[in-house]
Amino acid sequence: MTYCLAMCMHEGLVFASDTRTHAGVDYVTTYSKMFCFAPAEDRVFTILTAGNLATTQEILYRLKRDLDTQAAGNLCTVNYLFEAAHYLGRLSQAVQAEHHSALSRSGIDGSATLIIGGQLRGQPPGIFLVYPQGNYIPASPETPFLQIGESKYGKPMLDRIMTESLTLDEGAKLALVSLDATIRSNVSVGMPFEIAIYPTGSLALPQRQEIRAESAYYNSVKSRWQKGLSETFKQLPNMEWPDYPVA
Amino acid sequence: MTYCLAMCMHEGLVFASDTRTHAGVDYVTTYSKMFCFAPAEDRVFTILTAGNLATTQEILYRLKRDLDTQAAGNLCTVNYLFEAAHYLGRLSQAVQAEHHSALSRSGIDGSATLIIGGQLRGQPPGIFLVYPQGNYIPASPETPFLQIGESKYGKPMLDRIMTESLTLDEGAKLALVSLDATIRSNVSVGMPFEIAIYPTGSLALPQRQEIRAESAYYNSVKSRWQKGLSETFKQLPNMEWPDYPVA
Repeated sequence: MTYCLAMCMHEGLVFASDTRTHAGVDYVTTYSKMFCFAPAEDRVFTILTAGNLATTQEILYRLKRDLDTQAAGNLCTVNYLFEAAHYLGRLSQAVQAEHHSALSRSGIDGSATLIIGGQLRGQPPGIFLVYPQGNYIPASPETPFLQIGESKYGKPMLDRIMTESLTLDEGAKLALVSLDATIRSNVSVGMPFEIAIYPTGSLALPQRQEIRAESAYYNSVKSRWQKGLSETFKQLPNMEWPDYPVA
Repeated sequence: MTYCLAMCMHEGLVFASDTRTHAGVDYVTTYSKMFCFAPAEDRVFTILTAGNLATTQEILYRLKRDLDTQAAGNLCTVNYLFEAAHYLGRLSQAVQAEHHSALSRSGIDGSATLIIGGQLRGQPPGIFLVYPQGNYIPASPETPFLQIGESKYGKPMLDRIMTESLTLDEGAKLALVSLDATIRSNVSVGMPFEIAIYPTGSLALPQRQEIRAESAYYNSVKSRWQKGLSETFKQLPNMEWPDYPVA
């Protein structure tokens, strides 16, 4: 399993991902699921990946080859961010189609779900979720975040706090809280985390950092968050139970 | 969809459920999913239901008929709580088996997942989750709660706060917080909620209450919870981004 998250705020974009991969319950390994590209000085992209690892890796190999060989369609030929999502969806379809019959004979799901975000000069930054079927949706002002993989445990906090007006730093912190909720409830999502911020208009590679379990910062956030939630819970008003406590 | 939750504490048991049912995205209706029985003075049971509504309703009709007709197996003949779970699993299997071929021809899933909790005199109270296949698991001291239906959105708070030493009142409040997180993120889980508490040793029907969207208590809890989370979030330490903010 995987959990990746992208956020789109006025200040810019935040990307976050876990790094755990596994085949069944064993062969648990650590792979980055975050890939940043600045293939020309007028454009920058970040891709987050979920799903079959061989599929997602091959998509990225092909994407880089298309750039190297200046193929007819590549990240340098797209004129809009949605065209980059469209291109990524076509790559994903091609990789999945090539391996589908062999994988399905073994009962293996070779599908992949992707997020691509970034900016082209003169256009606003944005994020898109690319479905396994190759189609895609953007984030919206009302729902300024996109999730792939194990999205449910980390969503309540996003639903409560996430807005377009968060700062990049707040977005990154919220992503950390969302990732932390997810690894508590699903062992197939695991540390280290990767978090990246892209300030609107910079057209440079995002700043990124890896957050390991022993990180003092992470442990400080984790314990303060736990303490804050527990204290908030303790201060909630009591329910009224007419016959409680019972004699 | 559905979300039901049972908790087992030293003080007693808490049961909570939503009330939304639907066929596809329409024919949205409200049904109770919580059923309390005190079929003899030495025993009390509460059942929570998730899954196909016709299946769960027929299970309950059969359960009540077995009590009325003093059938060879019924809630009055069991000697342990696990036997009640076993009996409920057999009922569920019988109902599912009867309708399986007709339902599967229409592509309909007739399965049901249940929780049964309660107490028999001289034994500790407990809760069991009964799978669609009729087998069952209890809660444990390490995991003193069981969930059925849309369990993920409401689980992080349980993972953080739920212990056996919560009071019944705290358990009921935590159940409300867990239900509230779920309806924010999944529209197929809906109000009103039903919450019930059973004090250990009482051997009487649980006290229960319905919580409607307009409830002043619910709205007070909801707004204080939102406020507490937002304030806790605001006080988290900042991440360090060497080049942030960018010039």
